[in-house]
Amino acid sequence: MSLDQHRREVDRIDRELLRLLGERLEVARAIGEAKLKSGAPVYAPQREEQVLSALVEAAPNIPASGVRSVFREVISLSIGAQMAKPVAYLGPEGSFTQQAQLRAFGSSVPSLPLRSISDIFAAVESGEASYGVVPVENSTEGVVSHSLDLLAESELKVVAQVTLAVEQCLVGFGSLDAVTRVLSKDIALAQCRGWLSRHAPNATLVETDSTAAAVEQVAREPQGAAAVASATAAESRGVPILARGIQDRRDNATRFFVIGLTANATGAKEEVTSVVLTLKHEPGALQAALSSFSDRGINLIRIESRPSRRRAWEYLFFIDFPGHWDSSAVQEAVVALKGRCEIVKWLGSYPQSAG
Amino acid sequence: MSLDQHRREVDRIDRELLRLLGERLEVARAIGEAKLKSGAPVYAPQREEQVLSALVEAAPNIPASGVRSVFREVISLSIGAQMAKPVAYLGPEGSFTQQAQLRAFGSSVPSLPLRSISDIFAAVESGEASYGVVPVENSTEGVVSHSLDLLAESELKVVAQVTLAVEQCLVGFGSLDAVTRVLSKDIALAQCRGWLSRHAPNATLVETDSTAAAVEQVAREPQGAAAVASATAAESRGVPILARGIQDRRDNATRFFVIGLTANATGAKEEVTSVVLTLKHEPGALQAALSSFSDRGINLIRIESRPSRRRAWEYLFFIDFPGHWDSSAVQEAVVALKGRCEIVKWLGSYPQSAG
Repeated sequence: MSLDQHRREVDRIDRELLRLLGERLEVARAIGEAKLKSGAPVYAPQREEQVLSALVEAAPNIPASGVRSVFREVISLSIGAQMAKPVAYLGPEGSFTQQAQLRAFGSSVPSLPLRSISDIFAAVESGEASYGVVPVENSTEGVVSHSLDLLAESELKVVAQVTLAVEQCLVGFGSLDAVTRVLSKDIALAQCRGWLSRHAPNATLVETDSTAAAVEQVAREPQGAAAVASATAAESRGVPILARGIQDRRDNATRFFVIGLTANATGAKEEVTSVVLTLKHEPGALQAALSSFSDRGINLIRIESRPSRRRAWEYLFFIDFPGHWDSSAVQEAVVALKGRCEIVKWLGSYPQSAG
Repeated sequence: MSLDQHRREVDRIDRELLRLLGERLEVARAIGEAKLKSGAPVYAPQREEQVLSALVEAAPNIPASGVRSVFREVISLSIGAQMAKPVAYLGPEGSFTQQAQLRAFGSSVPSLPLRSISDIFAAVESGEASYGVVPVENSTEGVVSHSLDLLAESELKVVAQVTLAVEQCLVGFGSLDAVTRVLSKDIALAQCRGWLSRHAPNATLVETDSTAAAVEQVAREPQGAAAVASATAAESRGVPILARGIQDRRDNATRFFVIGLTANATGAKEEVTSVVLTLKHEPGALQAALSSFSDRGINLIRIESRPSRRRAWEYLFFIDFPGHWDSSAVQEAVVALKGRCEIVKWLGSYPQSAG
């Protein structure tokens, strides 16, 4: 076939795509009206995640990230048509939190940059914003622990979590044993020093201008060389990944919560529940509380203690674990937990990842 | 219909969309092979802009921005499958130039953040990058005039232009005559001071925390109030736009060029040509050169002079005007221009806007 014939084929496909988009928007509007009557939330991240993973599975010949980025925008168009109020996020425009907002909602959902995390909570509580997107782990943008404090006090629920992780990988053409030089930007090498000293103890560390430059150099002179870089950087230069997630600590700048008025019903494949609790003043109270989970085979994903703002010497424990709050395993653990804690508060259950 | 029935309908539509995406990807791969044989460029912004505006026109019931954001990702998936080398942009990740890169290429095209504008020119010239994205107007990110200097010296061509404009609007519920208070962030008010003094000379200017806060306040207390804000901010709160583009100067932080090895053939609806020229040392040389355009009814869009780096007291003039280089009107003007200038160099012809 000629280029022109191919292009006519593409045009035909695009017209069909467009017709289907229009159809989907019609149905979305009908869904919006039905939801308005029933009071069901417009944004259903559990259902969305189910839809997206099913689509990725159904199309083994299309890159998963491509399916997700196309359908993120397709879904965004439908949600945008149903959502009367904007999604508030920690601004300004161009912030990492805006990136998280786009990851969760796509570009067709109206959004509103606000100046502080408390403004975002207030906007969602008053109904001026439909949802809010706030950073929850150490970030360059504002004091993030604030988000957890506000969550503990607020009636808002966590409905989705977005991670913008830059996972460091070791990339190169040979095997790990043959690596004699590891190249990367100073900060990336520093992030992986512990892992490198264990897995490549005899390799020389060579600083480059950027992680991308390190990958370039490895691509040009592969002999004995490896680079520390993101998987994207490696893939874009066709350099194989030898090991993933080699940074010594999780990159903290990159976790965000979507908060809303209504908690999610169960639905996604991999769900996480967040709770906050305060302990009784008894010896061994923390161990006792945690055994509510371990006794039932529930492994904690994350635990963080913070001083309560209500009383001196009182601590809040923020805990994440797998499963939906309404599942029987979690409910059993919660009953046990309540016998061992002063307060147990459900912050929300949400898909492991959104977008 | 029940919510469940609607959802089954959405699922059916999504499966069809997915099937078509797969088909489009097949055709794109065939096009990629054909282009590889013929040496035609993978990225065809002229054709893309044609396709996008035709799709927007064909779907009056879908918001134009929604059609563009969905198809930007659909096209990105196809281009990503054809492009062997990444698109280089002025990093780091999260920079405005990365936003411009995503606007032009979508998320499925591999990309490579580089540290300097010269690195980007070098990467495209050597073939390590398929294209480059560089800022061309005053920006917070690096010395941007550098891009024009490098373009004048390089054989690379401008193939697309991206503007990330934040256009200020006056928004409110009444008529412009009835406005007694104009609310906005200090910097936004300052950007529009000239316009406001002409069109709302008696209004009090009131500073707010953000332009979004100004819109909120106008939405709550519309009487006599207007806000300076972006169209997006106004639309997301349902506040009508009274006037657009009211800032006294074009926002300079927001113009980018996509550069590549091969110039675009003609094709888009609204095309722009950029040239650089040096004048003969004669009195009235600039006026004579410019009359090559005005004599033929071609209005200049932009002119900027910069000292040449080759010779003292020599100046380069960068000129943008409508039309493709190959069009007969432009070719006539160029012939006249060459008689009046020492050097006339074509930098590229590209669609008015990309993405």
